Amino acid sequence: MELSHRITHLTGGGSDGWDVFYRARRMIAAGECVTELTIGEHDIRTHPAILDAMHAAAKAGHTGYAMVPGSDSLRDAVAARVQARTGVPTTRDNVLVTPGGQAALFAAHHAVCDEGDTALYIDPYYATYPGTIRGVGALPRPVMARPENAFQPDPAEIDAAAEGATSLLINSPNNPTGVVYSRRTIDGIAQVCRDRDLWLISDEVYDTQVWEGEHISPRALPGMTARTLVVGSMSKSHAMTGSRCGWIVGPDEAIAHLITLATHTTYGVPGYIQDAAVFALEQGAPLEEEVAAPFRRRRALAREILAAQNTVVPVPSQGAMYLMLDIRETGLDGEGFANALLDAHRIAVMPGESFGAAAAGHVRVAMTIDDDAFGRALRTLCDFAAGLAGSRPPTKLRT
Amino acid sequence: MELSHRITHLTGGGSDGWDVFYRARRMIAAGECVTELTIGEHDIRTHPAILDAMHAAAKAGHTGYAMVPGSDSLRDAVAARVQARTGVPTTRDNVLVTPGGQAALFAAHHAVCDEGDTALYIDPYYATYPGTIRGVGALPRPVMARPENAFQPDPAEIDAAAEGATSLLINSPNNPTGVVYSRRTIDGIAQVCRDRDLWLISDEVYDTQVWEGEHISPRALPGMTARTLVVGSMSKSHAMTGSRCGWIVGPDEAIAHLITLATHTTYGVPGYIQDAAVFALEQGAPLEEEVAAPFRRRRALAREILAAQNTVVPVPSQGAMYLMLDIRETGLDGEGFANALLDAHRIAVMPGESFGAAAAGHVRVAMTIDDDAFGRALRTLCDFAAGLAGSRPPTKLRT
Repeated sequence: MELSHRITHLTGGGSDGWDVFYRARRMIAAGECVTELTIGEHDIRTHPAILDAMHAAAKAGHTGYAMVPGSDSLRDAVAARVQARTGVPTTRDNVLVTPGGQAALFAAHHAVCDEGDTALYIDPYYATYPGTIRGVGALPRPVMARPENAFQPDPAEIDAAAEGATSLLINSPNNPTGVVYSRRTIDGIAQVCRDRDLWLISDEVYDTQVWEGEHISPRALPGMTARTLVVGSMSKSHAMTGSRCGWIVGPDEAIAHLITLATHTTYGVPGYIQDAAVFALEQGAPLEEEVAAPFRRRRALAREILAAQNTVVPVPSQGAMYLMLDIRETGLDGEGFANALLDAHRIAVMPGESFGAAAAGHVRVAMTIDDDAFGRALRTLCDFAAGLAGSRPPTKLRT
Repeated sequence: MELSHRITHLTGGGSDGWDVFYRARRMIAAGECVTELTIGEHDIRTHPAILDAMHAAAKAGHTGYAMVPGSDSLRDAVAARVQARTGVPTTRDNVLVTPGGQAALFAAHHAVCDEGDTALYIDPYYATYPGTIRGVGALPRPVMARPENAFQPDPAEIDAAAEGATSLLINSPNNPTGVVYSRRTIDGIAQVCRDRDLWLISDEVYDTQVWEGEHISPRALPGMTARTLVVGSMSKSHAMTGSRCGWIVGPDEAIAHLITLATHTTYGVPGYIQDAAVFALEQGAPLEEEVAAPFRRRRALAREILAAQNTVVPVPSQGAMYLMLDIRETGLDGEGFANALLDAHRIAVMPGESFGAAAAGHVRVAMTIDDDAFGRALRTLCDFAAGLAGSRPPTKLRT
């Protein structure tokens, strides 16, 4: 009588670089004043009008079992939104509503990977990716997106890693790097998927947070609609993180099987939450822009602050609610820098190492506190880094 | 590029006896007046005070990511309830909150079964059981609970099937049979689990609907706390089916791993729903009895109606919101009878065959419409059965 090997090995073991995060949380719990720039959560709450729509739906009696695939109205609203943004004909039969984007990531991998299959993902990565792959019994295989390539994945490297693989998971706009994949990157990825007969799982939950360039959904590329499962969510676009309402968009045959899976894993999403999501989507771009605006402002502020110094090297910030900063000039790795910053200034950021090997020597800064406090914290971070760099013995210039 | 074998074979293929259910739904959609006695859903809605508590929590700002294991307050409330009902010392570390009982069933099997493991379950069974087991890559193996044994599972039969098995899934009070496992049955099951070193997954979502006898949680038996995962939910006890709020109670080490799994499969349950669940649990037994009362009344009514005829043979109705009726005297199987009843009287019931081989020749009647309509429908069903039986050529008495 033991627990399954699959569940006891879900995280792969080893330090995951989250020690500094938990240390900050403990300091806060102990009453210390810590500036937290760690987690991808808005500093605003869900809009009261959305909550009122939810309550009205519940009071009107929408409290029983909802349809497992999602309500017709939400599936239609998601399909219409996706079609309008990508041009790909999309109907409710292409949509499964899930209890959040993470459930969609898990279900998508469950749908395409059997036990022992290999699933590719891009490093740096959102923390749950490898464990999600292990959770369906598959083997995670990372492909590096390198800082010297501004964290754009290289299709040639994906191709080189694709031998025997079943699927590829990508995420643009990207957490943790803030990079938006270029058309060239997306075209190259699609080519590899076609050449190597891969499923593409495209996590697009940050698709309303694009500061530079454009968001291209690979599902719209030639030959890709039949092999792409797009993960979407209300969390980031509508500040509904806690409501756990997401979706998968994909080929109708895959969605039909995913509905069967949902019957056995989650049995649907609360109807009143789906009604609230429909209400939120009906507000269209203005609400999405209102939710994205604080990050757009802070990203502009960060560019000014970072331009005025030359120790911290920012990764081009193109989308999502994060800044990825190269702090190697300080002589510390990401974890060492994050710990030192927390000790010296009570500012908590995430070590790049938390997101994989490729982001070593970086820290991720979430732009999730009010503008003034954010600006102060970022200036302090830069000054702290400059102090560390200035106290180092001269070294040859890193390439 | 194919879908996974696991997802495409989730339902095991073959007719599942749900044709009559979908036919009834189509008739209703086409505007026909059908009396539906198919689905385990209350005819009342979630209590407005619970919905108000939910809205107050959301408006107060509880709309961000909730803690993945569940809120401290809900985990504490569930632990206290379980400890009070069973006497087993239970803390929040023994509780994972899940988005509904189905998610708990899936996660529990994921935690104990690896690919290719054998998982036992009792037939007749709730519709999702075999697919849930297949969904984690394990092999479902049914053990019959026989009508001649009043659908109490026989520990000797479980033992005979347990060679090489990893887990056993049970459900008392039982859907679909309405049987409450006796102390003798539960003791015997616990003995088999200890002898065969099995995990026991105990689905107790109907634990507030006991009309006769007592609900015994096997987790409370000697040597069972360390090997039992109990599945619970707000759905049936508090008419919160659509809110998708359930839990697993088990050993703290298993719960720790299940929290990691939840991080990768669902990422928590909406905080405002958890707050509403805490409010509902704080109302204690009176609210639970209020929600159970209609089924208690209708079960008493059904006993009167069934006692006044001798064609339909009721399975002893001890708990849950269902009646299981043996209609073999009509000469039809469950599916044939359900279809004929739908055609003749626009009354929809579930064929026993929908719930496995053991319930063939039976139909399940959900007590989920108002008392008068329920009484009329049940009388019509009995008269219809008597008519069918009376028109048959005499046969020798079935044993």
